[in-house]
Amino acid sequence: MKRKITLKQIARELDVSISTVSKALKNSKEISADTIQKVQAFAKLYNYRPNNIALSLKNRKTNTIGIIIPEIVHHFFSKVIRGVELVANKRGYNVIIGLSNESFSKEVINMEMLANGSIDGFILSMSKETLLQQDYHHYNETMNQGMPIVMFDRVVSDIKCDKVIVDDFNGAKNAVQKLISNQCNHIALITTKDYVSVGRLRTQGYLEALEENKITPQAELILKMDDTLDYEVHLEALEAEIEQLFKAHKNIDGVFAVNELYALSAMKVARRLGLNVPDDIQVIGFTDGVLSKHSTPSLTTVSQHAQLMGERAADLLIDKIETDFDTEEEQFQTVVINTELVERESTK
Amino acid sequence: MKRKITLKQIARELDVSISTVSKALKNSKEISADTIQKVQAFAKLYNYRPNNIALSLKNRKTNTIGIIIPEIVHHFFSKVIRGVELVANKRGYNVIIGLSNESFSKEVINMEMLANGSIDGFILSMSKETLLQQDYHHYNETMNQGMPIVMFDRVVSDIKCDKVIVDDFNGAKNAVQKLISNQCNHIALITTKDYVSVGRLRTQGYLEALEENKITPQAELILKMDDTLDYEVHLEALEAEIEQLFKAHKNIDGVFAVNELYALSAMKVARRLGLNVPDDIQVIGFTDGVLSKHSTPSLTTVSQHAQLMGERAADLLIDKIETDFDTEEEQFQTVVINTELVERESTK
Repeated sequence: MKRKITLKQIARELDVSISTVSKALKNSKEISADTIQKVQAFAKLYNYRPNNIALSLKNRKTNTIGIIIPEIVHHFFSKVIRGVELVANKRGYNVIIGLSNESFSKEVINMEMLANGSIDGFILSMSKETLLQQDYHHYNETMNQGMPIVMFDRVVSDIKCDKVIVDDFNGAKNAVQKLISNQCNHIALITTKDYVSVGRLRTQGYLEALEENKITPQAELILKMDDTLDYEVHLEALEAEIEQLFKAHKNIDGVFAVNELYALSAMKVARRLGLNVPDDIQVIGFTDGVLSKHSTPSLTTVSQHAQLMGERAADLLIDKIETDFDTEEEQFQTVVINTELVERESTK
Repeated sequence: MKRKITLKQIARELDVSISTVSKALKNSKEISADTIQKVQAFAKLYNYRPNNIALSLKNRKTNTIGIIIPEIVHHFFSKVIRGVELVANKRGYNVIIGLSNESFSKEVINMEMLANGSIDGFILSMSKETLLQQDYHHYNETMNQGMPIVMFDRVVSDIKCDKVIVDDFNGAKNAVQKLISNQCNHIALITTKDYVSVGRLRTQGYLEALEENKITPQAELILKMDDTLDYEVHLEALEAEIEQLFKAHKNIDGVFAVNELYALSAMKVARRLGLNVPDDIQVIGFTDGVLSKHSTPSLTTVSQHAQLMGERAADLLIDKIETDFDTEEEQFQTVVINTELVERESTK
């Protein structure tokens, strides 16, 4: 854990009173613009956090882990949380959860709030907006203040921290290979636009499987959905686009979808068009959620072992929290969780 | 908000040093058993909380709401959280979530942790274990310390606080009335054991609908499942019991299930036995989850308007947080959310 600067140190360095520093940090009208600028620049440089009480709390261990996830109505994230909880409880830690709702500013607010003395470290998956804006200052500031972060699933290489990721590339490749081995020759891909890294990797896996089998990828068989839309709007657009795809390419005999919802929608549209799954079209979805098991036919999926991801993330974080970096060099690792193809009725 | 007692006040009252009080609260061996007992009894009587830093934080407004829910992998609770978030964001509050995992002690630990200066008030649904043990001291202690609580869904009348509940009784009664109007004469009920209040109310609604239609309830058509079991074990036992029920009573032509999972299992077993839904058996489930819409046939459900529950709970809590009870008499209200029958393919 790195040392944190105090009000007193800032005051000494700039040769002003502690009260002046405190007021300058709060933009008080009693203080000259020049001094305010000087103090704030210095405070920023040394990562001073303006909350005194929180600061004193921060030096205390809370034995609590903060989880920040993009959304709550999502089976994958629920399972990750269950995994974190399992390990955290075993190792004497509690867990609290904040939601970003896929918003950059909500992510920042939640992290600032929890970092103020409530927790010892973060386990988080980035919001779509953060990925789009590529603004990672809040992660780096948090870590600079000595609070470790473990990222899972949605990660970027620019951030130096421990990470737990799914082998999205090979998961997708194996799924498409399965369709090819099952005699599919015209395999459609239903994916998201490219800004979320996992979507991109799954698309690459799809292409790689085709190429290895000397099947030329056809751009018109790849459907890229904009999933930043409102859920209901998105669902409607999704079904309309899949219907158009199936009608325009009657030879499609396999579908690989990057998530469960897209796979189920493909099955629904197929049924509506009088096509039998798996006889006419075989379907595989990434992400093994609750719907896959209960749908008719049940869906063959690429399981991400979400609970295991949570368990590994919790172990990495607690190891970091409990290490004294005054004596040890800090190192980061990326744990890759292998996927598993869960075969059900939607493939032969 | 009520006044909180300090270490200093306890010391003065008992005529000992502050250090003695502090050590006695931590069961220090330096202090006599007699003094420890005296100090702790006094501290308990006046709701002293042993964390000084947290105490100073507690007098500060955090603009954060804490939600405590029994489990995260549950569509109903996710939707409630979404509702809380919606209102909280609009009114300038943030939301953090703690999980009890249906455990009494985890509920207590989570509430203690969050009550220590992280939040301004709680929105919570009780764990099954708390309901079983009927130990509510942690709710009352929290409120005695001036932190308001709003309970939703699973509530008990013994606790004096604001509540948001679903009209479980009438929701169930209307669902069973629908089956009766649709010519069902032998309606089975699949429910949980009685310790969770909502299960009991739904059972009463079932019985009332039968009686109003002069149908004599038959105990052998009521299946009571123990849902404290592990999920997978529970699911297996559930299907086996439903199969036994259907085989023993071939005249069953309607099923009312107190949750989505039970309703879907009933449909699954019916299909396995060669029975057509809705032609041979009509099925209605309480709780409108994701599975209902996507199952084949899709499931007719009693929607609880979970998001609306969350919205109302957040409004009640924030109103309470922002009221000054030094000048106003504190009053509690219970908001009842009406259910709605969402008709789909599992009924005629």
